[in-house]
Amino acid sequence: MQPLKNDRFLRALLREPVDATPVWMMRQAGRYLPEYRKIREQAGSFMDLCTNPELACEVTIQPIKRFPLDAAILFSDILTIPDAMGLGLYFEEGEGPRFKKPVRTSADVRALGNPDPETELRYVTDAVRLIRRTLDNSIPLIGFAGSPWTLATYMVEGSSTKTFSRVKGMLYGEPELLHRMLTTIADSVTRYLNAQIAAGAQAVMIFDTWGGVLTPGDYRDFSLQYMQRIIDGLTREAEGRKVPVILFTKGGAQWLEQMADTGADALGIDWSTDLALARKRVGNRVALQGNLDPAVLYAAPDVIRERVAGVLEAFGHGPGHVFNLGHGINPDVDPEHAGALINAVHELSAQYHK
Amino acid sequence: MQPLKNDRFLRALLREPVDATPVWMMRQAGRYLPEYRKIREQAGSFMDLCTNPELACEVTIQPIKRFPLDAAILFSDILTIPDAMGLGLYFEEGEGPRFKKPVRTSADVRALGNPDPETELRYVTDAVRLIRRTLDNSIPLIGFAGSPWTLATYMVEGSSTKTFSRVKGMLYGEPELLHRMLTTIADSVTRYLNAQIAAGAQAVMIFDTWGGVLTPGDYRDFSLQYMQRIIDGLTREAEGRKVPVILFTKGGAQWLEQMADTGADALGIDWSTDLALARKRVGNRVALQGNLDPAVLYAAPDVIRERVAGVLEAFGHGPGHVFNLGHGINPDVDPEHAGALINAVHELSAQYHK
Repeated sequence: MQPLKNDRFLRALLREPVDATPVWMMRQAGRYLPEYRKIREQAGSFMDLCTNPELACEVTIQPIKRFPLDAAILFSDILTIPDAMGLGLYFEEGEGPRFKKPVRTSADVRALGNPDPETELRYVTDAVRLIRRTLDNSIPLIGFAGSPWTLATYMVEGSSTKTFSRVKGMLYGEPELLHRMLTTIADSVTRYLNAQIAAGAQAVMIFDTWGGVLTPGDYRDFSLQYMQRIIDGLTREAEGRKVPVILFTKGGAQWLEQMADTGADALGIDWSTDLALARKRVGNRVALQGNLDPAVLYAAPDVIRERVAGVLEAFGHGPGHVFNLGHGINPDVDPEHAGALINAVHELSAQYHK
Repeated sequence: MQPLKNDRFLRALLREPVDATPVWMMRQAGRYLPEYRKIREQAGSFMDLCTNPELACEVTIQPIKRFPLDAAILFSDILTIPDAMGLGLYFEEGEGPRFKKPVRTSADVRALGNPDPETELRYVTDAVRLIRRTLDNSIPLIGFAGSPWTLATYMVEGSSTKTFSRVKGMLYGEPELLHRMLTTIADSVTRYLNAQIAAGAQAVMIFDTWGGVLTPGDYRDFSLQYMQRIIDGLTREAEGRKVPVILFTKGGAQWLEQMADTGADALGIDWSTDLALARKRVGNRVALQGNLDPAVLYAAPDVIRERVAGVLEAFGHGPGHVFNLGHGINPDVDPEHAGALINAVHELSAQYHK
């Protein structure tokens, strides 16, 4: 295996010196790119795109062709696991994800399997292998999965939700049932991420999109605990390098210290927290990834540059920062604005690494 | 004017001793009550209900008839102000609020008036007077308004939003225009709240529903600053009593210290923060209102009781706590569960006030 041509991203995650701050964007392969919308249209449904390794590879690579990004991220969906568990994932246009068979009863929970990634999620590991070949060691590839709590919210609700009434009904009313379910999911996610790593993912990220809707105690017991279980079971080295783990709880800024205790290498930070404060709180224990407000991309390039400068300054000197948005890039953003962000990060960050 | 029969709520807001922790629920006059749904159906649209003082009074009183609540809150909507400014508020079933004439340009901002509450929002002050007469000094009445930033999000977007693309586009791209708009809104809100106080509101609450989507610096500059402007201009005494001000930024737990600096008497706290920690952070400067996860009401009454006990214990001994949910009560909650919450607060809190 050749060495990576650009390993800034992996080095920054491990708080090793770099020449400039690496940058990627959550949902960088997505609807804001006209070339993505074209493939998406040809593919049919969103899931048709996810389950076709050639197309998944193509859209993963699209932003890499356009921009000097420091990492690629597998194009997929966090709900592939519940789908492989037999819940019947489907998407209704403008409605978000839905499951044909949501998990509501103790029998439903018992029936949940532990999908074999190399057979039941083969389309994902095939995509990882194909993307790695295509990237040809230019930049690293990030694998990912949803957190057990986040997956459980969709699995129990059967769709997106604003009130989390069913899953919180279970949390408050039948906590043991939810714990059993979260254990099963955590074990499946561990196996799934390890399969991604075996197939070539060089870093992995756990997306805890909905951890922030919990009370501090419930976050610890129902979300963080199961992310810890995953981290404890992950392959942490492959191809002679460490495989860094990034933990991201949206709205979890109050719990950074506890998140750092899990043994994750880096924490994703949303834009509600100043990076300087976040860094002070976690010290040298973890790297930080973030945290530009995605809405900054609605502004003109000179404003984007100014705000990028602000985030870089907030983190300050030294290694341990991966630049990212605080959430996925919005579909109505001008791709040129994304380019302005990426260039600004590289140009303005060099001074912090001297 | 007779003294209030039950002034626990006002006393707690001013951190004066009480016999039990007072309790009310955000959106306590709302869709979870069958008697509300009945009136709502008869009234026609949601705005027909808001603009009819007799009906607004009736639904305000409905939860008071059912439960031993310690405060009533005016039934109204935060968007009455932009409506009175001429934006043409309307509601589409299942779509949330919309404006016929959103604010997008500098000319739109200049055209915004400062509505006279006693004429253009007379239906609100009439409702306040009628509710006060109906309550007959049993419990106090809370008036309220939206924060300037929160109102601006609706006024610029023209509807609910997930991405805040237009208003943040303005924030990042034309900050001076947004500042001018927020100044106008803040002055209108001040006038509006003072009119509610003159009409009989005995405490007022500022709902900053969307302050939490801002970065820390932007929260200070575009939301908190204008709430401060309102607080500075409020009538703080009426009928020989202090009129306490409650400030609530949803998702604002990271900024409690700054919120306490505004001179508000109390801060609303959502359920993402432990009350013990929140109390430690703000010390004796303000009272705290909150913070049960509204989803606890999906659980059985014994679980509700347990979780109420947890919140009371987190706040601990002494005055300065108003019990509430961390957000509005959800429409699909069983009213008996709300009753269980209210009874639990009164029964379990007495020990903390000895």
